Amino acid sequence: MPPFDVPEGDPFAVPEGHPFAVPEGHPFGPHNLPYGVFSAAGSDARTVGVRLGDHVLDAAAAAHALGSPYAALLAHPTLNPLLAAGRTAWSDLRRALTAWLTVPSHRETIAPHFHPLSAVTLHLPFEVADYVDFYASENHARNVGRIFRPDSPDPLTPNWKHLPIGYHGRSGTVVVSGTEVVRPSGQRKAPADPAPVFGPSVRLDIEAEVGFVVGTPSEQGRPVGLGEFRDHVFGICLLNDWSARDLQAWEYVPLGPFLGKSFATSVSAWITPLDALDEARVAPPERTHALLPYLDDSAPDVDPGGYDLRISVAVNGHVVSEPPFTTMYWTAAQQLAHMTVNGASLRTGDLYGSGTVSGGAPGERGSLLELTWNGRDPLDLPSGKRTFLEDGDEVTLTAWAPGPGGTRVGLGEVTGRVAPRE
Amino acid sequence: MPPFDVPEGDPFAVPEGHPFAVPEGHPFGPHNLPYGVFSAAGSDARTVGVRLGDHVLDAAAAAHALGSPYAALLAHPTLNPLLAAGRTAWSDLRRALTAWLTVPSHRETIAPHFHPLSAVTLHLPFEVADYVDFYASENHARNVGRIFRPDSPDPLTPNWKHLPIGYHGRSGTVVVSGTEVVRPSGQRKAPADPAPVFGPSVRLDIEAEVGFVVGTPSEQGRPVGLGEFRDHVFGICLLNDWSARDLQAWEYVPLGPFLGKSFATSVSAWITPLDALDEARVAPPERTHALLPYLDDSAPDVDPGGYDLRISVAVNGHVVSEPPFTTMYWTAAQQLAHMTVNGASLRTGDLYGSGTVSGGAPGERGSLLELTWNGRDPLDLPSGKRTFLEDGDEVTLTAWAPGPGGTRVGLGEVTGRVAPRE
Repeated sequence: MPPFDVPEGDPFAVPEGHPFAVPEGHPFGPHNLPYGVFSAAGSDARTVGVRLGDHVLDAAAAAHALGSPYAALLAHPTLNPLLAAGRTAWSDLRRALTAWLTVPSHRETIAPHFHPLSAVTLHLPFEVADYVDFYASENHARNVGRIFRPDSPDPLTPNWKHLPIGYHGRSGTVVVSGTEVVRPSGQRKAPADPAPVFGPSVRLDIEAEVGFVVGTPSEQGRPVGLGEFRDHVFGICLLNDWSARDLQAWEYVPLGPFLGKSFATSVSAWITPLDALDEARVAPPERTHALLPYLDDSAPDVDPGGYDLRISVAVNGHVVSEPPFTTMYWTAAQQLAHMTVNGASLRTGDLYGSGTVSGGAPGERGSLLELTWNGRDPLDLPSGKRTFLEDGDEVTLTAWAPGPGGTRVGLGEVTGRVAPRE
Repeated sequence: MPPFDVPEGDPFAVPEGHPFAVPEGHPFGPHNLPYGVFSAAGSDARTVGVRLGDHVLDAAAAAHALGSPYAALLAHPTLNPLLAAGRTAWSDLRRALTAWLTVPSHRETIAPHFHPLSAVTLHLPFEVADYVDFYASENHARNVGRIFRPDSPDPLTPNWKHLPIGYHGRSGTVVVSGTEVVRPSGQRKAPADPAPVFGPSVRLDIEAEVGFVVGTPSEQGRPVGLGEFRDHVFGICLLNDWSARDLQAWEYVPLGPFLGKSFATSVSAWITPLDALDEARVAPPERTHALLPYLDDSAPDVDPGGYDLRISVAVNGHVVSEPPFTTMYWTAAQQLAHMTVNGASLRTGDLYGSGTVSGGAPGERGSLLELTWNGRDPLDLPSGKRTFLEDGDEVTLTAWAPGPGGTRVGLGEVTGRVAPRE
C-alpha cells in the first residue's frame, strides 16, 4: 500500500510554488515526510517541522488547527517528546500527516502553516543523549588497517568479525548541518619526530556515515534484542564524523579516539522515520564468521535490518565518492543489540553512527584518508588538489533510498564548511 | 579565615541530635557543605539539599524562609541550574549558607528545614551531559601496562607523558551511590580460545576515581585554558568506574573501551564544592617530560590544580586499598585544558573522571586488576578469597581531604552491590 493515497479529483492540481505542488519524483514528496526543528523568518521560537518538497509544515500549528491530539507532542523546540512517544505514536502520527496532506478539507486547513524551506532556520533536531560511533564497514576497516598497519597479516583486528566495534563520542559537540567547523588544534607526532608538536590539524578529514536516532528508552540491566530494533529506533539522519587524523593517530592507543573526533560531529537537519524506508530494507551481506546468538540475524523471524541508502560525498560541490550503505557488514539492529547486551540502557535522543560507509570500489570510499590513501594519491578537484581538507572547504553529504513505486526517499543533506583556527 | 565564623554566646550549644549539634571533627561539619538532591520521607519531590553532619538541609526551603534570592536556583530536581550559575554565584551561595548556619536568627529560621540523613532518599545529583574518563595515574598506567603487555620494554605507551589520555564514556548509565549494579554480559575470548564465548563477565572490577563536575559551559571552537579551571568546575565527587576486564580485553582494540565500561558508573550523592577544598590544594608530582604550553602548569601564575584526597576502597566493609590522590600525574586542570584544546565545548553537567587512582605501594592500588595482579594473587578477605567481584559483593569508596584548622572534609561515599545477571 503506498503511504500517500491520492484521492479523486486531482487535489494536487495546485499552482506552481504552492506547498502541495511537489513535482513528481521529488525526493521529499509525500512518501517521505522527515521531521526537523525550525524557526520561521523573524522568529526565535523553535518548533517541529515536517518537510514536504521545498516547504516546511509547522506541524504543531497544523495539528492545532485540525484539533489533533498530536499538537501537544509537536509544540516543542526539539523532537525529543515525539521520540519518547514510541512506535505506535510514530506510525499513527505519520498516518495522520498523510491524511492531512490528502483529505481536501484538511489540506485547506493546514495550507497556511507551510513555510518556504528557504525562509526558515533549521536547528539541531533533537537533544542528543549519548552518542556512539561504530566501525561497521568491512571495506573501511580493511582500508584503515592496510594504511595504518601495513605489516600486519590481516588488516582487520581479530574481534572485527565477531562484534560491531564501537566507542562513545561527545554528544555536546553534535551540530546541525550548516554549522561551521573550526579546524581543531592538538598534539601530533610523526614516527620520526622526537617529541609531539602542537598546532592546527594538518589532516582534517570527513567520515560519511548514517546516524540512527533512538526514541524509546530501555531499562538499565535489560538488553534490547535484535527484534526490538524498530520499537526503539525512530529514524535516521546523515552524519559527518569530522576526524583529525594526525591528532587521532597520536592519541588513540590505548583508549581509542578522543580529541581527534570530539571537536564536531555534523548531522542532517531532517530525521527520516524508519516508516518511510520500508522499501529500502535489504538483507545484509553474507557473514563469513558464525555469530553469537544475540547478533545472529539469519533466523527467519528476525528483521534483517539492512538499508539500501545511496550516499554521495561532495567537496566544494564536486562529488568525490558514492558510498553504498548496502555493503555494511553490521546492521543498525545488530549495533543496538550489541550496545545494550551488557545491560547499558538507552535514552530518548541517543544517537549512533554506522561508522564510515565505504564500498568496495575506489570511488565508493567514505573518507579522504581512504580516497587519497593517507595523502599518497591527492584528489584533483576543480577547487584544486586535495589530500585532506583545507580551510574554507565545504563538505556536503546527500543520500537517497528507494521509495514506493520507483520513487526516491531523500535524506536531509549534511553540510559544513571548515573555518580556520583563529 | 575559617569558612565558619562562630559567633559569641555559643549558638552551637544545642541538644544532641539537633541538626546544629555536629560533633567536633565531623567530616561533614560546617566547613564542608556538599550539595546533593534528595526527597524527604513520604515524598517523591526532588530538591537540592546541603549536608551538615548527619542531616540534610532543604536548601530551597531554607532560602525561601529567609527571603534569599537563591531559592530560585535551588528549587529544582537537579543541581544543574546551580551548576550553570557560575563561580561568583557558587561562592556567594556558600557564604550565604555559612551565614544561615551561623547567625542566630537565621539558624532559628532554617532549623525546621533539616531532615535526618537516614530519613531521606538521595538521588543522582545532576543530569550528566558528557562523561569522559581519564587515565591519569602513572602507577595505574604502569601496572596495567605490565599486566597486559609484559613483553613491552616500557609499560607506558609513548604518548602517556605528553597528554592526559582519556575517552568518552556513557553518561546515560551514570548512577547514584547505592544503586545495584547488574553484572554485565558480553563477549570474551582468552588468547587460547578458538572463538569468543558469551556470558556474564567473570572479571568484574572496580576503579576508584575522583569525578569533576563542570558547571559553567564553554563555546565550541574556544579552548579553556589551564587557568580557567575554577571558573568552569564546580566541585568533585567520588566515582566507581565499574569495569568488566574480560569484555574490555576482547573489544578494546582499536577503538577503546566500550561495553566493558558502559553498563554502569557510580557516583557519590554529594558534590563537594571546590571552595571547600582550598586547604587540600597541592602541587602535582614533578613531571619527567617537558609539557606543551597548554598543559604546562609550572608557571608561577598557574594554579597547580592538584588535590590531596585520601581514598579508601572497601569490599564488603573490609578496606582493601587506600589510594592517595596526590600521586596523580595529570591534574584536573590539565585534563580540562586538554579536553577542550581542540575546540570541544563544555556543557553544564559534564563529568570527567580522574582515572583509577593508584599509589606506589601495593595497598594503594585502586582496582582489583592491580590488587590481585590480574587474578594471580587473590585477596584474602573476611568474606572469602577474591580475585574479581562476586555476586552480592558490595564495594564502597570513601575519601577525605584536609580542611581548615586540622579538620577533615569528607567526600560523599559511593557504594554499590553487584547483582547477579538474571
